[in-house]
Amino acid sequence: METFFSFLEKRVDDCSSLLCVGLDPHVSDLKENSAASALDFCLNLVKQTSRYAAAFKPNAAFFEVFGAEGWSALKEVIDAIQHESNRMGSMIPVILDAKRGDIASTAEAYAKAVFETLGAHCVTLSPYLGKDSIDPFLNYPEKGVLLLCKTSNPGSGDLQDMTLSNGDLLYEHVARLAQTWNTKNNIGLVVGATHTGAMQRVRAAAPDLWFLAPGVGAQGGELESALRAGLRKDGKGMLIPLSRGISRAEKPGLAAAELRDQILGIRNRLRP
Amino acid sequence: METFFSFLEKRVDDCSSLLCVGLDPHVSDLKENSAASALDFCLNLVKQTSRYAAAFKPNAAFFEVFGAEGWSALKEVIDAIQHESNRMGSMIPVILDAKRGDIASTAEAYAKAVFETLGAHCVTLSPYLGKDSIDPFLNYPEKGVLLLCKTSNPGSGDLQDMTLSNGDLLYEHVARLAQTWNTKNNIGLVVGATHTGAMQRVRAAAPDLWFLAPGVGAQGGELESALRAGLRKDGKGMLIPLSRGISRAEKPGLAAAELRDQILGIRNRLRP
Repeated sequence: METFFSFLEKRVDDCSSLLCVGLDPHVSDLKENSAASALDFCLNLVKQTSRYAAAFKPNAAFFEVFGAEGWSALKEVIDAIQHESNRMGSMIPVILDAKRGDIASTAEAYAKAVFETLGAHCVTLSPYLGKDSIDPFLNYPEKGVLLLCKTSNPGSGDLQDMTLSNGDLLYEHVARLAQTWNTKNNIGLVVGATHTGAMQRVRAAAPDLWFLAPGVGAQGGELESALRAGLRKDGKGMLIPLSRGISRAEKPGLAAAELRDQILGIRNRLRP
Repeated sequence: METFFSFLEKRVDDCSSLLCVGLDPHVSDLKENSAASALDFCLNLVKQTSRYAAAFKPNAAFFEVFGAEGWSALKEVIDAIQHESNRMGSMIPVILDAKRGDIASTAEAYAKAVFETLGAHCVTLSPYLGKDSIDPFLNYPEKGVLLLCKTSNPGSGDLQDMTLSNGDLLYEHVARLAQTWNTKNNIGLVVGATHTGAMQRVRAAAPDLWFLAPGVGAQGGELESALRAGLRKDGKGMLIPLSRGISRAEKPGLAAAELRDQILGIRNRLRP
């Protein structure tokens, strides 16, 4: 049976890309402060970058800020990615960046909202509430989750860098748990590209998992050192999400193509 | 200036209640599987229980599952609470249970979505990403946040109970951070009523903060032991959220009144 990560790997092969195109309709980047403008922004990005996108990652916050209309726009964006995929003959996974985390029937409702109502293929989740908060998402065998592990922001140290009594850092503990929990090939991790040392430790703790590695570009993460630290032995296992670096370029399609090639060039040098 | 918790305390005094009425329109409790039915369910609960509610707590997941229509319903529910408050002449705080957690401009967008677009007064957040993920919410001086600390579910131990190298448990560390971060009286904690020992430790680590203490009833938390462990010295500092225990009662208003009185009776015995 196809799992989310086998689906993702097929797409990575189809487009020779580890680039994940972020769909972040920041109000400051829109023509008007409206859900319609957010939709236009995203549809344009999807159209221009689809050839180079291993995945698309809409960020729920920038839609929620427009309330119900924002949610309609988000659904339209996900539908448009589906149409674009059909047109190209290669399905592009949609990762909803939502960082949800709740328990029991509430987690079930979130999973249904993300996977059924919206139709996303994968979602980012917080691990803070533990395994039973993840399970309702894992119960969709063809869908995936990406658990926050070591994030790219300065404050990530407040909890994630705490040393446990066994010597592990908290984010390493999360990585080990995720590696253990991943019995159905549907769990990956969010590991910021801004902390190369942390990336190495997470890769050691979770040798098999896919990482979403934000922080390249705007947040100062260095692409080559991140890929060196985080790629799996098979030269896969890392998605590099870029948002403003693409959406603010004069030609987003060209920017995406160049980023795809840049990532690929480094990858091929590191894992020939 | 009024802060969220001074606002909450005024309401607690007005209605002599520490009861937080959860608005969780589970599909299984609705007449029809629709946003309209979720709205009816909530409006009825608001009307019947408003006299006894120190706060209302709609849960975002059960609205998101209906997509854009669900978000419209959620906004209508919050507006209805505002109207009901005006009618009664006592404002009832709205705590959106959303457990968000993100960084930078994304966190700003979530804060705007919750506090401006929806008009909630307080929101539950995950602490996993650290202080800078909370700051955009704290920048609304009259609004509040409730950080997940020790949750009521079985899996909460996976991260929250880990022992740090200094001997603290992770949830105690979160409680200490929150107590330190609370310079503007706008941070509280989510502490499950199912773990009395944990409640005591959190109260010791955060003597001043308000707790939202889920888990009474359905999840087996025992009200008296929870209140004994968690009440502040002033007899406040704890909100007891109940959802199904009220919504599934034959007469939700009566159930809310009885729960309010039961909580108050125990409180008065413990803190005369």
